[in-house]
Amino acid sequence: MNKTITVIKGDGIGPEIVTEALRVLDKIAQKYGHSFTYQQIDAGGCAIDKYGTSLPEESLQKCLDCDSVLLGAVGGPKWDGVDKNIRPEAALLGIRSAMGLYANLRPAKLFPQLSGASPLKPEIVARGIDLLMVRELIGGAYFGDHITEEKNGEKVATDLMTYSEHEIERIARTAFNTARKRGKRVISVDKANVLDSSRLWRAVVHRVAAEYPDVTCTDMLVDNTAMQLVKDPSQFDVVVTENLFGDILSDEASMITGSIGMIPSSSLGEGTRGMYEPIHGSAPDIAGKNLANPIGTILSAAMMLKYSFDMDAESEAIEAAVNKALDDGYRTGDIMSEGMTQVTCSEMGDKILENI
Amino acid sequence: MNKTITVIKGDGIGPEIVTEALRVLDKIAQKYGHSFTYQQIDAGGCAIDKYGTSLPEESLQKCLDCDSVLLGAVGGPKWDGVDKNIRPEAALLGIRSAMGLYANLRPAKLFPQLSGASPLKPEIVARGIDLLMVRELIGGAYFGDHITEEKNGEKVATDLMTYSEHEIERIARTAFNTARKRGKRVISVDKANVLDSSRLWRAVVHRVAAEYPDVTCTDMLVDNTAMQLVKDPSQFDVVVTENLFGDILSDEASMITGSIGMIPSSSLGEGTRGMYEPIHGSAPDIAGKNLANPIGTILSAAMMLKYSFDMDAESEAIEAAVNKALDDGYRTGDIMSEGMTQVTCSEMGDKILENI
Ligand SMILES: CC(C)[C@H](C(=O)O)[C@@H](O)C(=O)O
Ligand SMILES: CC(C)[C@H](C(=O)O)[C@@H](O)C(=O)O
Repeated sequence: MNKTITVIKGDGIGPEIVTEALRVLDKIAQKYGHSFTYQQIDAGGCAIDKYGTSLPEESLQKCLDCDSVLLGAVGGPKWDGVDKNIRPEAALLGIRSAMGLYANLRPAKLFPQLSGASPLKPEIVARGIDLLMVRELIGGAYFGDHITEEKNGEKVATDLMTYSEHEIERIARTAFNTARKRGKRVISVDKANVLDSSRLWRAVVHRVAAEYPDVTCTDMLVDNTAMQLVKDPSQFDVVVTENLFGDILSDEASMITGSIGMIPSSSLGEGTRGMYEPIHGSAPDIAGKNLANPIGTILSAAMMLKYSFDMDAESEAIEAAVNKALDDGYRTGDIMSEGMTQVTCSEMGDKILENI
Repeated sequence: MNKTITVIKGDGIGPEIVTEALRVLDKIAQKYGHSFTYQQIDAGGCAIDKYGTSLPEESLQKCLDCDSVLLGAVGGPKWDGVDKNIRPEAALLGIRSAMGLYANLRPAKLFPQLSGASPLKPEIVARGIDLLMVRELIGGAYFGDHITEEKNGEKVATDLMTYSEHEIERIARTAFNTARKRGKRVISVDKANVLDSSRLWRAVVHRVAAEYPDVTCTDMLVDNTAMQLVKDPSQFDVVVTENLFGDILSDEASMITGSIGMIPSSSLGEGTRGMYEPIHGSAPDIAGKNLANPIGTILSAAMMLKYSFDMDAESEAIEAAVNKALDDGYRTGDIMSEGMTQVTCSEMGDKILENI
């Protein structure tokens, strides 16, 4: 198959980790007889430096004209002071919204080889961590109006947290459909004892749940979920929630695995075209030093093959190659532990390539 | 001194745990020559059952006419279906708002006797957990308008997350003043890369921080904070944040101590009058069985003596009595571990009383 992939290397460690992922994709193309065309675009901080905006029109257009987008990381303290509309994050939000990527899937899974890296105690880790966060990505307080006004002699700022029935319904379907292929358990997270948007969320999720009698559906309040993730993550299979809660909880969930450098994510809309990126940030402190962990990005590429290109065997070949590199004891600095062999970002890429 | 305390036993385990706290207060009164008058009121689910509303006007009035309020717990699945305006939670929100309690202080501290109860691994716990969450309690999405309307043939629900400068300024002052008496480090949590209310939050916190050159102030994004609390809670001293983020993060922070049955909280406004309550819920599953842990409520009473009545010695006497009961190996079911002596709720009360 021929596929056109829009590539955003971005800022900080972005270029290094994406480079390794592209090498892996090239190897897959060669081995399985595909051809991947990469169109590299500028977005994020580097685009601000070049064009004065984090998402030039041409970059956005290339995200819309492709089969999928692969992103490294954007942002960094260098651009903390810039206006909110041209911030690095605005590029991410702009792409998500323009591409209609309402479903953000973030697996938080313990790699058995790295179970010692979890901050949780061994008794809890032993029960297993294998959950999937399904976060609504283009609604809620992120995309409602943001208003700052002068009232009675002081500034008053308001963000609108808005959800409509169809927005909730489609993300609920994503969660239930995905749960069918996993443990058949959905936990829907809201704050229905306080928020109207959460009460609507809960009602619509229940309505959708009725169409999936083979999947159990349980409500959990967001504050309680923040506790339960730490207390006993093994109780979760699929967790579905709105944008802001999903931002907070998916980061918490990934941290309990102890290896955020390893976690990929996919953002999907109605079609098969998506955006794939590791969940970690741009880590400016180690940028350009060949120290970063490329696995989150490489597994994001694997997710792209599976979800957007229907290339299951190819995707699994990458996952197996990553697993073998870990089994063989290779570790980047962030996941290094006693008795293992520490490797650089590109060396980790080499090891994974060898296993494909 | 004579003090009038409004007492809300509430629902579930509320009555049992409050009973023990009142016994402790009586003993303190006797020993230190004070007189505490308790005015018991109905609020929460039990009030719905009796009066059809969770916060009868007379109950609210008694919260306004007293020196402080002590609350056990309100709510339970029994009232899940009732209208949002008369829900048990509405009582809590109504009292917070009517009393002007904008500052919610929730200490998350590891009891050395219970370090094994933390879900975090020993290496992390060994660095210590002793942080104070300062949560804004009467602003943000909790108290902005909640609107559900019909638009283009579907329901659309919106919650307004609003903050004004003076609301942020006063809670920031609470955080910095409290930090001065502790580790002199404030971490202010927001989502300034997305929300206008967070950008205003950050600007005002920085302005207030400038008046406290002896206290360090660092910004942290809410998603990152959810990670850092699990990764290394020892990095936190005082954490200040808005209502909804505070709800989520304070529950996460309390869970990492492993003993949410032990954690008190205070809610304060401009004067000295406050509301004091354990952070745990009404635990309907163990209600009426004399199994609950009364320590969170007893320590809430201790907080009341210190913050509202300026009775430092009395407050410390309670804390010391609790510590001694733990040192002596007494544990309620929720904190039971091998080699300790399991006691009931009232027996724990007895043990603590004996130590005063
Ligand atoms: C960078 C930021 C705007 C973004 C978000 O909050 O969605 C990030 O935290 C994420 O989770 O992808
Ligand atoms: C019961 C609920 C409304 C309340 C809140 O969200 O504030 C509770 O979770 C709390 O933290 O005190």
